[in-house]
Amino acid sequence: MPDTEAPPTVAPLPAVLGALQDPVRLEMVRRLGEAGGPLRCSALYDTISKSTAAHHFRILRESGIIERTTVDGQTWVRLRTEEVGAALPGLLEAILTAASRPQK
Amino acid sequence: MPDTEAPPTVAPLPAVLGALQDPVRLEMVRRLGEAGGPLRCSALYDTISKSTAAHHFRILRESGIIERTTVDGQTWVRLRTEEVGAALPGLLEAILTAASRPQK
Repeated sequence: MPDTEAPPTVAPLPAVLGALQDPVRLEMVRRLGEAGGPLRCSALYDTISKSTAAHHFRILRESGIIERTTVDGQTWVRLRTEEVGAALPGLLEAILTAASRPQK
Repeated sequence: MPDTEAPPTVAPLPAVLGALQDPVRLEMVRRLGEAGGPLRCSALYDTISKSTAAHHFRILRESGIIERTTVDGQTWVRLRTEEVGAALPGLLEAILTAASRPQK
């Protein structure tokens, strides 16, 4: 049986924007958006330490943007696309679109 | 002749989100969005000092979200709706929609 946390609510708009304004967290969310499904934690960052990554994951979880699920002892991360979309319509889409474009 | 600053470019996504994650700045932008046109600076905040407001205006200007224009010695602020929309499609709309909804 998957060990899934109780689903968090989506935080108020300033907290969601605060979670996404960090380039490391934005890249984590971009990779999840691109994948279109859950990813292993380790697939979401490259050059930071595990403890730094854990800090960023916590902020994304607390704002309700991502959710952690453990299956067979492995931790996966899911983007809460529908939940964020219901709370803040169009926001995540616009951010994923902008984050996926090549930087000028 | 209006004394208008050279138009800034819109900052990269993390900087724009960083500018908008602050509740005071979000409220400034919300009021501008609701007005649908330029407003006097003083119409954009209530309970903060003029110098604190100037700090917030500067961050919004530097991220390219607002623009200052002086007409007949009076300073007005304009939301750069089209410019931000061209750089980050859908973002400002989604944020204005979310910011205008009653808080749950």
